[in-house]
Amino acid sequence: MIEKPLVGIIMGSDSDLPMMEEAFKVLEEFQIHYEVRILSAHRAPIATAEYARNAERRGLRILIAGAGWAAHLAGVIAAETILPVIGVPLDSSPLQGIDSLLSTVQMPPGIPVASMAIGKGGAKNAALFAVQVLALQDPDLCGRLREFKRQMADDVTVNKKEILEHFLAVRTNG
Amino acid sequence: MIEKPLVGIIMGSDSDLPMMEEAFKVLEEFQIHYEVRILSAHRAPIATAEYARNAERRGLRILIAGAGWAAHLAGVIAAETILPVIGVPLDSSPLQGIDSLLSTVQMPPGIPVASMAIGKGGAKNAALFAVQVLALQDPDLCGRLREFKRQMADDVTVNKKEILEHFLAVRTNG
Amino acid sequence: MIEKPLVGIIMGSDSDLPMMEEAFKVLEEFQIHYEVRILSAHRAPIATAEYARNAERRGLRILIAGAGWAAHLAGVIAAETILPVIGVPLDSSPLQGIDSLLSTVQMPPGIPVASMAIGKGGAKNAALFAVQVLALQDPDLCGRLREFKRQMADDVTVNKKEILEHFLAVRTNG
Amino acid sequence: MIEKPLVGIIMGSDSDLPMMEEAFKVLEEFQIHYEVRILSAHRAPIATAEYARNAERRGLRILIAGAGWAAHLAGVIAAETILPVIGVPLDSSPLQGIDSLLSTVQMPPGIPVASMAIGKGGAKNAALFAVQVLALQDPDLCGRLREFKRQMADDVTVNKKEILEHFLAVRTNG
Amino acid sequence: MIEKPLVGIIMGSDSDLPMMEEAFKVLEEFQIHYEVRILSAHRAPIATAEYARNAERRGLRILIAGAGWAAHLAGVIAAETILPVIGVPLDSSPLQGIDSLLSTVQMPPGIPVASMAIGKGGAKNAALFAVQVLALQDPDLCGRLREFKRQMADDVTVNKKEILEHFLAVRTNG
Amino acid sequence: MIEKPLVGIIMGSDSDLPMMEEAFKVLEEFQIHYEVRILSAHRAPIATAEYARNAERRGLRILIAGAGWAAHLAGVIAAETILPVIGVPLDSSPLQGIDSLLSTVQMPPGIPVASMAIGKGGAKNAALFAVQVLALQDPDLCGRLREFKRQMADDVTVNKKEILEHFLAVRTNG
Amino acid sequence: MIEKPLVGIIMGSDSDLPMMEEAFKVLEEFQIHYEVRILSAHRAPIATAEYARNAERRGLRILIAGAGWAAHLAGVIAAETILPVIGVPLDSSPLQGIDSLLSTVQMPPGIPVASMAIGKGGAKNAALFAVQVLALQDPDLCGRLREFKRQMADDVTVNKKEILEHFLAVRTNG
Amino acid sequence: MIEKPLVGIIMGSDSDLPMMEEAFKVLEEFQIHYEVRILSAHRAPIATAEYARNAERRGLRILIAGAGWAAHLAGVIAAETILPVIGVPLDSSPLQGIDSLLSTVQMPPGIPVASMAIGKGGAKNAALFAVQVLALQDPDLCGRLREFKRQMADDVTVNKKEILEHFLAVRTNG
Repeated sequence: MIEKPLVGIIMGSDSDLPMMEEAFKVLEEFQIHYEVRILSAHRAPIATAEYARNAERRGLRILIAGAGWAAHLAGVIAAETILPVIGVPLDSSPLQGIDSLLSTVQMPPGIPVASMAIGKGGAKNAALFAVQVLALQDPDLCGRLREFKRQMADDVTVNKKEILEHFLAVRTNG
Repeated sequence: MIEKPLVGIIMGSDSDLPMMEEAFKVLEEFQIHYEVRILSAHRAPIATAEYARNAERRGLRILIAGAGWAAHLAGVIAAETILPVIGVPLDSSPLQGIDSLLSTVQMPPGIPVASMAIGKGGAKNAALFAVQVLALQDPDLCGRLREFKRQMADDVTVNKKEILEHFLAVRTNG
Repeated sequence: MIEKPLVGIIMGSDSDLPMMEEAFKVLEEFQIHYEVRILSAHRAPIATAEYARNAERRGLRILIAGAGWAAHLAGVIAAETILPVIGVPLDSSPLQGIDSLLSTVQMPPGIPVASMAIGKGGAKNAALFAVQVLALQDPDLCGRLREFKRQMADDVTVNKKEILEHFLAVRTNG
Repeated sequence: MIEKPLVGIIMGSDSDLPMMEEAFKVLEEFQIHYEVRILSAHRAPIATAEYARNAERRGLRILIAGAGWAAHLAGVIAAETILPVIGVPLDSSPLQGIDSLLSTVQMPPGIPVASMAIGKGGAKNAALFAVQVLALQDPDLCGRLREFKRQMADDVTVNKKEILEHFLAVRTNG
Repeated sequence: MIEKPLVGIIMGSDSDLPMMEEAFKVLEEFQIHYEVRILSAHRAPIATAEYARNAERRGLRILIAGAGWAAHLAGVIAAETILPVIGVPLDSSPLQGIDSLLSTVQMPPGIPVASMAIGKGGAKNAALFAVQVLALQDPDLCGRLREFKRQMADDVTVNKKEILEHFLAVRTNG
Repeated sequence: MIEKPLVGIIMGSDSDLPMMEEAFKVLEEFQIHYEVRILSAHRAPIATAEYARNAERRGLRILIAGAGWAAHLAGVIAAETILPVIGVPLDSSPLQGIDSLLSTVQMPPGIPVASMAIGKGGAKNAALFAVQVLALQDPDLCGRLREFKRQMADDVTVNKKEILEHFLAVRTNG
Repeated sequence: MIEKPLVGIIMGSDSDLPMMEEAFKVLEEFQIHYEVRILSAHRAPIATAEYARNAERRGLRILIAGAGWAAHLAGVIAAETILPVIGVPLDSSPLQGIDSLLSTVQMPPGIPVASMAIGKGGAKNAALFAVQVLALQDPDLCGRLREFKRQMADDVTVNKKEILEHFLAVRTNG
Repeated sequence: MIEKPLVGIIMGSDSDLPMMEEAFKVLEEFQIHYEVRILSAHRAPIATAEYARNAERRGLRILIAGAGWAAHLAGVIAAETILPVIGVPLDSSPLQGIDSLLSTVQMPPGIPVASMAIGKGGAKNAALFAVQVLALQDPDLCGRLREFKRQMADDVTVNKKEILEHFLAVRTNG
């Protein structure tokens, strides 16, 4: 069990927790120690900048930032650290996430943010991507990632096949 | 002639100067002292935050921030000051400014940014809006604004009429 | 307690009231006297133009106009006054507010409208922006704005932290 | 030859003339008397409202309004008259006309504007639509419209066929 | 009471009836005789073309076509008649009407379709626009349109004012 | 009754079954033997490529691939076979299918995918298009397609007419 | 050499020829006899419907329709035939083809149109897709398609590799 | 000097080289050994899958995939490796990159792709992000990244300041 958190998950509001929880689950499945913060590029800029500036020194290896609306959180954090920053655009505004997607992904040259898909799926993938980055230094984690990929393929070709056959059988008989 | 700058114009890159110059012209026309800075929420976050934090104390009354791509500049500045902040989305990316518009205008509740139109027109209007705000305390400026509005109406009904008549005459005769 | 209204809030329909109420709350919190009107650039153009033309003389300092669909209200009001006009695009049409956003923000050069985000969040920010403009002449209001910003930061770093810890504890134990 | 203008063509700027000229040509082809005005919902609101209010009394039957950006011109004119108003969204902003299209077409219930396509094609069709409306009272115009439709079909099936055959012949031989 | 229908309302599916009913109500209010057809440019092209071709001869003066998805109905009808055709884009697909709006409004030069807003509001306005066109030949209808506009203005300035005052009173007291 | 499946329907997830079932129904109505697979360009790339590579040899004539999000399934299958591939973009992400539509339809030159509309309607049309392709070699199927088209037209002109008349009668009497 | 045309290519305007020529080239490369027509759903509806109705009887097997703006051509043709219809959205309007794409692909259930990508690439792929459909009955064509795919892969892995190496060599040495 | 390539840069076409070269420059600046391949998810699927499958074994640590249109390249590569994959959407289609952005970023849960901004800026940031990931294991690289960030800030606050002052001086004097 890894002691110190390697991944920092930051989000703009506690209402983002149910979406970002997808990332918690993945990291727990891969036994990656992580920490969670609610921060805000706009409402708590000093605390946010401080968190980003200290992240590397505190032993964090990768940061995940989820935010909705004009989502500046990932970009503002990326400005203050050399750690890789992953952005998760959340669909909390009436525009269903196209605003947070463009605000996250269209970073100007010089300060990269790695953007994931909008919403829950993006939060899950952000954590998986973090695991992939951490696995570069951890052969054991590589093995678990390969196993995860194998199970995902099996899930499609075995489990889903059963669900499909059941669905088709019910159609024919029912 | 006003001595100290009342309006601070910030932009993300020197390549934004030809667009933001529209704002300079308006402020000069209204004899409003202004200052210009090239700053960046992402590449120079500390200098940017400092500029925003000191703006009020330094006597500035209103800030105008122009930026393209995922335009975080206005939002990041608004986070650090209680001065009114006007955002000008610039069309520097392949998406023609819809990215900078949404990044500028879709600010989450609590930290307002007053967004203008994309590009040169927005830069001009940002300066005019700043003049309108400053005019709230300056009856002389109110007078000049009223005169500006009158001339704009005259321009439409008198000058444009001539251009139009010339255009129509050329069509008929030519 | 300020006697005369300083802020005029105009909206296109009574169905916009629950959204625009966010602005009422902010102004009340900051003890800014305001007035509310239901007007329409299209259905009641004369009353709307008259309201806008008289606003300055009646002592109003700033106007907030919320409208949906092809939202012309803010622009039409801005055409008739030198007071600063803030536009709030509302998401009342099937297009979820992208129509009202573009109709509000893409004002042609010469007549600025300061656009806020779509919907409730934009209404709240419109009022906050109005407070920021009024604070330029009111040191007491500046103090209250600084206090508001401090509480917003504390809310993120203190209150939200508790909510987060509770959420994480429930996950671990439950 | 009809003496008094039946169609009023209004546009927001003299830079719109080359686009709106498409409408002039159609009306001339159908020998419909028209007049042209440069007006602006925002820069010359009083002249614009007056023009719209007097249009019916002056004998105009239909109005065509072309504008770019947040195109309020057609809507503002429609608010002041019971004459049918046709809107032509122009692509003058960086957003290529999607802003003027939505500002023109998404009119709220109660004040219709008949929107055409963006740009030159829309200007041409606006004039044709005006001719169709006028033809309801003018059997001679009906005849000319039917002839116009017939020629358009012939143009496709005869003239274009020749162009096509030439194109294909050049390909084969060249 | 007018005997023969002057307005033909066509829609692509019976599921469009609740939306297009807004047009029925307006025409009934103005005592305009109308007829309704369910037709389809794609599923019943011959019947649709025939309806359009015979419309003028049958005494119809204006046609309103409502359709969703890739909405070709209005365009296909406009191709077959010299009567003015109004298109109402309906939001029946997952894209919320942007597909039907662009399919309706972006007609190529030569065949105009007058597009209204997406959905119910557009259906209402289509009927109002038809009334405006018919009023060009009917001074009595002009009078009723002027009265309609007056009531709409009164509704805003009188009725809505009461609703607003009630809303504000409840807020203050409740 | 045709023995071997001629159409292969592939989808990215079992949650797509209720949407893709529209295709099953059409093929059953036309008595076309089909098979269904849940596969994934991303989670089960080897099984997916194998399925596509063997499809022609196994006697399949046409493939239908339904997927949401960044829908790569149809494109990846088209890369591995010379059979015609039809793509159905599904609206499973917050962006309501515009992401899957563009990912499906905007195939680069060299590898065509025939894209249908987003969602259920697209799934139905994909199957109908497959029937049209198969009918090129099957005069009996041509007959059934002609009959299908005739019934569709009748449905519009006869059945829908009744529904419409009932609707109008209820309005008048009720 | 095949005598009678098997593929009919229709386009809305002669200005579409340079884009649609991409389809000619592919069909010539595969020695598929084709014919070309300029038709228009709107300007020449009768000729267009007739062409579509007679296509099957005349021995055509598949139709390709390219159009810009509100592109109704493919849909209108699909309404009149049981032959498979492929739609190519062209980017001739200011909206760069998003209007023609949605007008082409979002066909309502019952009348499929197989949409390709916007512009030249789509025209090329439309022809390739037609070849794939025709190859279902032509083992020789299957062979040529397999060879085409092999060459395409070789082009990437052999020719492009050389271009790449040259590019990199120039960078290093230059 | 590092011997074996750590970063693999893949692109769909040699026409992408001028855009992707931005990534080459960054990696050379940071002295990271990289390799470049032109591959295609659609035209050369086997070579692409093989490259991705062997990448980890060959010692590569991170992959960058640039593609336009329906950009499946990054997703297809991510499906075949546990290495982190960065996607760069290129603006090669008429839709200016919104198609490739959505095809790249909206990856379904399970297979992450880290998306960068559209075009050249995205290519540059992809390389910088790769450096950040590699720096997690390389203290020397961390130092160079910190130095890069410092220079970027200096560039804004020192160099740009000079450019700005020159610009303003020319305005005043010229």
